[in-house]
Amino acid sequence: MGSQSDLTVMQGAADMLKEFDVPFEITVVSAHRTPERMMTYAKEARGRALKVIIAGAGGAAHLPGMVASVTTLPVIGVPIKSSNSLDGWDSLLSIAQMPKGVPVATVAVNGAQNAGVLAAQILAVSDEDLAARLAAYKKALEEKVQQMARDVEGGKG
Amino acid sequence: MGSQSDLTVMQGAADMLKEFDVPFEITVVSAHRTPERMMTYAKEARGRALKVIIAGAGGAAHLPGMVASVTTLPVIGVPIKSSNSLDGWDSLLSIAQMPKGVPVATVAVNGAQNAGVLAAQILAVSDEDLAARLAAYKKALEEKVQQMARDVEGGKG
Amino acid sequence: MGSQSDLTVMQGAADMLKEFDVPFEITVVSAHRTPERMMTYAKEARGRALKVIIAGAGGAAHLPGMVASVTTLPVIGVPIKSSNSLDGWDSLLSIAQMPKGVPVATVAVNGAQNAGVLAAQILAVSDEDLAARLAAYKKALEEKVQQMARDVEGGKG
Amino acid sequence: MGSQSDLTVMQGAADMLKEFDVPFEITVVSAHRTPERMMTYAKEARGRALKVIIAGAGGAAHLPGMVASVTTLPVIGVPIKSSNSLDGWDSLLSIAQMPKGVPVATVAVNGAQNAGVLAAQILAVSDEDLAARLAAYKKALEEKVQQMARDVEGGKG
Amino acid sequence: MGSQSDLTVMQGAADMLKEFDVPFEITVVSAHRTPERMMTYAKEARGRALKVIIAGAGGAAHLPGMVASVTTLPVIGVPIKSSNSLDGWDSLLSIAQMPKGVPVATVAVNGAQNAGVLAAQILAVSDEDLAARLAAYKKALEEKVQQMARDVEGGKG
Amino acid sequence: MGSQSDLTVMQGAADMLKEFDVPFEITVVSAHRTPERMMTYAKEARGRALKVIIAGAGGAAHLPGMVASVTTLPVIGVPIKSSNSLDGWDSLLSIAQMPKGVPVATVAVNGAQNAGVLAAQILAVSDEDLAARLAAYKKALEEKVQQMARDVEGGKG
Amino acid sequence: MGSQSDLTVMQGAADMLKEFDVPFEITVVSAHRTPERMMTYAKEARGRALKVIIAGAGGAAHLPGMVASVTTLPVIGVPIKSSNSLDGWDSLLSIAQMPKGVPVATVAVNGAQNAGVLAAQILAVSDEDLAARLAAYKKALEEKVQQMARDVEGGKG
Amino acid sequence: MGSQSDLTVMQGAADMLKEFDVPFEITVVSAHRTPERMMTYAKEARGRALKVIIAGAGGAAHLPGMVASVTTLPVIGVPIKSSNSLDGWDSLLSIAQMPKGVPVATVAVNGAQNAGVLAAQILAVSDEDLAARLAAYKKALEEKVQQMARDVEGGKG
Repeated sequence: MGSQSDLTVMQGAADMLKEFDVPFEITVVSAHRTPERMMTYAKEARGRALKVIIAGAGGAAHLPGMVASVTTLPVIGVPIKSSNSLDGWDSLLSIAQMPKGVPVATVAVNGAQNAGVLAAQILAVSDEDLAARLAAYKKALEEKVQQMARDVEGGKG
Repeated sequence: MGSQSDLTVMQGAADMLKEFDVPFEITVVSAHRTPERMMTYAKEARGRALKVIIAGAGGAAHLPGMVASVTTLPVIGVPIKSSNSLDGWDSLLSIAQMPKGVPVATVAVNGAQNAGVLAAQILAVSDEDLAARLAAYKKALEEKVQQMARDVEGGKG
Repeated sequence: MGSQSDLTVMQGAADMLKEFDVPFEITVVSAHRTPERMMTYAKEARGRALKVIIAGAGGAAHLPGMVASVTTLPVIGVPIKSSNSLDGWDSLLSIAQMPKGVPVATVAVNGAQNAGVLAAQILAVSDEDLAARLAAYKKALEEKVQQMARDVEGGKG
Repeated sequence: MGSQSDLTVMQGAADMLKEFDVPFEITVVSAHRTPERMMTYAKEARGRALKVIIAGAGGAAHLPGMVASVTTLPVIGVPIKSSNSLDGWDSLLSIAQMPKGVPVATVAVNGAQNAGVLAAQILAVSDEDLAARLAAYKKALEEKVQQMARDVEGGKG
Repeated sequence: MGSQSDLTVMQGAADMLKEFDVPFEITVVSAHRTPERMMTYAKEARGRALKVIIAGAGGAAHLPGMVASVTTLPVIGVPIKSSNSLDGWDSLLSIAQMPKGVPVATVAVNGAQNAGVLAAQILAVSDEDLAARLAAYKKALEEKVQQMARDVEGGKG
Repeated sequence: MGSQSDLTVMQGAADMLKEFDVPFEITVVSAHRTPERMMTYAKEARGRALKVIIAGAGGAAHLPGMVASVTTLPVIGVPIKSSNSLDGWDSLLSIAQMPKGVPVATVAVNGAQNAGVLAAQILAVSDEDLAARLAAYKKALEEKVQQMARDVEGGKG
Repeated sequence: MGSQSDLTVMQGAADMLKEFDVPFEITVVSAHRTPERMMTYAKEARGRALKVIIAGAGGAAHLPGMVASVTTLPVIGVPIKSSNSLDGWDSLLSIAQMPKGVPVATVAVNGAQNAGVLAAQILAVSDEDLAARLAAYKKALEEKVQQMARDVEGGKG
Repeated sequence: MGSQSDLTVMQGAADMLKEFDVPFEITVVSAHRTPERMMTYAKEARGRALKVIIAGAGGAAHLPGMVASVTTLPVIGVPIKSSNSLDGWDSLLSIAQMPKGVPVATVAVNGAQNAGVLAAQILAVSDEDLAARLAAYKKALEEKVQQMARDVEGGKG
């Protein structure tokens, strides 16, 4: 993530990865304030055996796209609705609208939790155990909704 | 993809996958006109050894998100700027703004080529040969820009 | 509705239906977390003698459109301005911009009360008593505005 | 519709109604240029045994909402992307964002065909024959997509 | 104005008219809930020697345009950012984007004070005394800014 | 208007004023390229017995607002969708969103004809003959729509 | 700046200029309420040995563009998200979308601090000492992010 | 600029610089396809005695901001409305909405000519001859508008 102030949102990605027992590291790398560090971090990522990078940023959010420019790892971008951003519109467009050849896998505005889920799904392509944990998570979501349905249906007309 | 008319755009994904020697299948599945087929297709995908699903749609673009709802495979969504869409804004928002638990890896509006690249990147997480082809592709992009630079610099002031 | 958290908004539909003495049921069905349940619910609706379905959702709001894809009943969509949504713009576009053949009758953002009124109007097409109650409701709205006018006109210049 | 120039779009509604064998009338009524005629038309509609009103308009599109203000019939609004409109955004918002008590069933921008389908769905609430024709139409849409799928799958990877 | 809840905003128009000693009346007329009253009010306005009409409304804001449709008096529209509106965008577009032949003089979102000033300017076209009061008001605005400048310049670098 | 290239759009205002027999002058005054000329023009306007000013501009459209800043005459602003503008959104917002004390009577994007009608309505506040011509114009619009209705009703279902 | 109420935002520019030891003056000049003063201020600026002008404004934000129209000094515009503005969209477009020949160097919405930095960068083109202070500032930003990284990495997975 | 296809737009900057006799170089540097080259180019710019950098890009337009991250030279950003962009909105927001500490001087969408003018204005801060050429250019713009005025006034009413 580009700033410590993004931690509130980005924690959601860490939480999901913990839930799926996926090891991860979390750090602060700013495209605009530490461009060298960002380039080095991203270029070394595959060599350090990282498999997916999640990058969150707000406003003119260049971090995910710039990371993607120097690695062949999949990069997941989280548009953050920060106090500097135009309600997240700038963040979303700056991350999603990448040119040919350099994709960023963009999730919803403030959708850090989904970034964590997507990272797990990417790893689960070749990890059947993780795939099973993801299936169980989906099942749990389903059961939670069914419980909601039972709660709400007490109010049937 | 949701309609044969999306083929012009979605062909870009097929082209990139061919370039990276990634086998793929292409078909038409409509969330709104063949919902059963969509559900079956998406649910059986992992069992059929598909590894990534690319889904393109325009307007109220529900295909990527609905496919994601019934599979643990990563789903890449391509927002299409179709004649029915509000210049692609509806397509982008309908695909990117997924709720917690069900991510879609959204690429740029009409960014089918990048969906192909992203799919290859996801597969390359555990395929070093493919990673090498991706690195070569990045190198080629770079060289193309450098050639452009040489061409344009003929016009230096 | 797609989540219990939508209840605050969607209660407005229930309130209007009660006011018009229209029997209804209310439940939680999520397009993305309980897709099977949604499909089953929607497919069985006509057979269970439901006549109109009101579906509310926020963000990438696929519930109304997906319900509409498997029933010939009229489906009314309520775009919800949830904490996940881009001020309701994503909800509105995801619901209104349906492709040819599968309409959703979209009301205003957070317009659940109007969804209730519209459902009653649809039923009143073949129910003169209900039509009379709707006419009385319109009359009451009119009188309320006239009372406002009398109150405010105390401040004439 | 509000102007003869809207006929190109609104013809789609007529076409669908013909396909479903639903009798209809079509005329030009302008909220801003023939307000009296609009009021009279809308107020007399139920008495003349009309059952649903489809109103299309562009720009500051007041026709659907004003018609809805004086009838208890369901009113379907078609936002038209006319040369006067801001790509249809003004049309969509002017029609969808109705206040409490006076709903308009809004379809997609230029979605006149869906207005026809929705009108048929509303009538089919109490007309099993029409419901059967709608089910057949849905079936035909499905088959058309399946044919597309067969065509496109010739290009499988 | 269309509702008593708009009074907080619309009071600004009344305040300016009082400041310029322009007699006015203020009432509640709803396009959607009292359409007949609106039509009658607007049609009789010129005969009652009203000279300008200020109409404020939010969301699908049809009041100013519909009033304009039945009078030759200038109509000033105030887009209101109400709780029902999409931050005022719907209000602004519904009021400004009128079709050929039926203008509404639109002011800023929540710009009721300016509606009062504009009404005074329109009356001052043929009222030199009022024009003088407007010129004095402009002078006072200017002096207020100059005072601000003196206050702020205490902080010169 | 701010540029000769705006003439295609602004001609619409001249056409309407001719239709209503309202004398007018038309010139090019640019807020950004001839600011002095603009200030002088606007300041002298009332003294030269001009009664209303119509100003059209596109992009960062400052002409109407700046003219309004130095005259007490009513100023009508026409947002122009020029090649420099973001489809007219910038033009509309730059003209409509004026601060307290300095209103611009904004019409629709490219709505120069309505600027002409509005100017005539303003003058007609104290000119019964002009008011009668405006009433006749409204009548003609109405009859034109009724003719359209007769034409289209040949296609009744 | 156009109003004392903009001081909260614009103080950021003053703070940065102080940090870089760049002398400056700060005053209130309103395009719409003190147009003459604005013209005089801007025209005399170069003669008074000012080198860069920073102008902040909200809503229909004409101040930066109008200042730019009468000076050859670089003008930096700060779009302010004021209570009158549509979340800053109007401010941004009114400032950025200037016509050919009269640029405004636009920074982010509420980006007054960056206006200060940009002014310093412009002056540093011919001032190596200031350039060194800017380089030191960049270094400090970098170190601050690196400290954040160390703090956050305590939470590594 | 980021691609040879941007040359049509960016030529405007070159044209203006030629008009002002400002020496310049023009090349292609892509943030996403040649990130190393971009970093090197930007870092070496000041050392190579460049004084201002103009960077144009479309879509997720990261070039101007990334260049700004590694130089203390002023960077002017030109948002390009390319075929990949959402009508230039993404380009504008990606360039303008930079975080604290790293400004980009943003001009209008496709406003390359103004980027050239702004660069000249920046250089003219310490170059009186260039300032004189800029003043002459402003004068010429003014005269061109006055000629337009004379042409158009042949059509006075």
